[in-house]
Amino acid sequence: MKLIENWFSERYSDNLQLSFRVSDQLLSVRTDFQRIDVFETYDFGKLLSIDGTVQLTEKDEFVYHEMITRMPYLYSDRKPENALIIGGGDGGAAGELVKLGLKSIVNVEIDGQVVEVCRKHFPSLASSFSRKNVELIIGDGIKYAEKTDRKFDMIIIDSTDPVGPAEGLFNEDFYRNISRILSDGGVVVTQSGSPFYQPKAIGLAHKGMAPAFSFVRSYTAFIPTYPSGFWSFTMAKKTPIEMREETLDPGQYFNMEIARSSFSLPEFVKKLIA
Amino acid sequence: MKLIENWFSERYSDNLQLSFRVSDQLLSVRTDFQRIDVFETYDFGKLLSIDGTVQLTEKDEFVYHEMITRMPYLYSDRKPENALIIGGGDGGAAGELVKLGLKSIVNVEIDGQVVEVCRKHFPSLASSFSRKNVELIIGDGIKYAEKTDRKFDMIIIDSTDPVGPAEGLFNEDFYRNISRILSDGGVVVTQSGSPFYQPKAIGLAHKGMAPAFSFVRSYTAFIPTYPSGFWSFTMAKKTPIEMREETLDPGQYFNMEIARSSFSLPEFVKKLIA
Repeated sequence: MKLIENWFSERYSDNLQLSFRVSDQLLSVRTDFQRIDVFETYDFGKLLSIDGTVQLTEKDEFVYHEMITRMPYLYSDRKPENALIIGGGDGGAAGELVKLGLKSIVNVEIDGQVVEVCRKHFPSLASSFSRKNVELIIGDGIKYAEKTDRKFDMIIIDSTDPVGPAEGLFNEDFYRNISRILSDGGVVVTQSGSPFYQPKAIGLAHKGMAPAFSFVRSYTAFIPTYPSGFWSFTMAKKTPIEMREETLDPGQYFNMEIARSSFSLPEFVKKLIA
Repeated sequence: MKLIENWFSERYSDNLQLSFRVSDQLLSVRTDFQRIDVFETYDFGKLLSIDGTVQLTEKDEFVYHEMITRMPYLYSDRKPENALIIGGGDGGAAGELVKLGLKSIVNVEIDGQVVEVCRKHFPSLASSFSRKNVELIIGDGIKYAEKTDRKFDMIIIDSTDPVGPAEGLFNEDFYRNISRILSDGGVVVTQSGSPFYQPKAIGLAHKGMAPAFSFVRSYTAFIPTYPSGFWSFTMAKKTPIEMREETLDPGQYFNMEIARSSFSLPEFVKKLIA
């Protein structure tokens, strides 16, 4: 009988935590930007943590990655041909965009070590960076958006939460630059936190996006390993947010009913962005 | 500085647990049916646990109670006048039905001590049992459904999970009796567990209901203190499951958009009941 158990716990507050029993800690590294840990869990496969918060697990990453890519894909006025991902150093979002048939994907991740860690421990996700239509840039997404002359049909902000390195990804100046580099009829989406435990994040996203975009709407998804199990994403366009006539095959979470209904927000969430 | 912290943990499996820091344990009692505990938590107010699983907290009980009552209310062919609740010993479902204006509510709870505990520790919920249109019966809901001659417009199965005392509430014989005591055009709903951690529960509910009802559909809601944060309810009727022409005011979770969209199931949930 094993007398010592190893648990990784994410504290959602001083008073609440979700704990995963782990068989091994595969890596722990402090980079210039953040602390990265990888655990082998019993129930969720490998788990990537940044600054103590779960970024993804092998078992449930599909929800986040399907929902942050297929939703903007369908709500872009024209079928998107190229995309910019800011963050997303695990390669999961880029991989979904490859599956969606995009011709060109630029992925700007600030922390090269996230990419290295994921290449080693989450190869099924990070292998997308080896696709010839995916261009990986290690650099600051805020500066990239400020300086590039390229235009994108779809922009995905796949960042950590709005504290630490991702803070600037929620503000107005950033979204003015995003607006500048977005094609006509294009769409930008950002993860915008747990409406329950991070009630300010979704409001920050709206506040950051509203000055540069006429249409801003949030949608939600259920992600069991994220705080409260309930997550929000916020989408913005200069044209109305309406679904394009195209039917995508179901994923493991996503399907065409979810594509429509995930914009329906519980009343307490509506109040956070009223 | 306090060196000892007290935590109540619900184990979702041997390898995963959600923990609430508690300032006090207010009660612990073993009844003829189950073990009941009440904790004072820091983040969620008082918490009721049965057999180690969270039944409700003051802070998020509204999601469960709104969704298990307002959905069947709206999907009943006629405006329901009377209802049967099986389980629901906390009084939360009965309270919501009182708010919805039902004339007569029968609540059959098997464990009288659940009611006593909630009268003491959750008076804002259990006070519904003092309303003159609510009849509380301490007894076995399965036997009640077998023997009663009354008919109900709406039947709510607000039980614990399909292990232990609630096991018989998921089977075919029980639902044949429910069908017998349901008015024409009436609706029955049961909680049917977490599609993620209890993937069999939603299938059990469908299997139990299908022989006696022509129409069976599941809907979901986000409940942060239940396993995975994602919960299912399953509704059955002998007539098509269509919303009645009536607009309800929003609750804290429920609103008319949620009333429609909560039937949209993620693809992995659809597969559990295919």
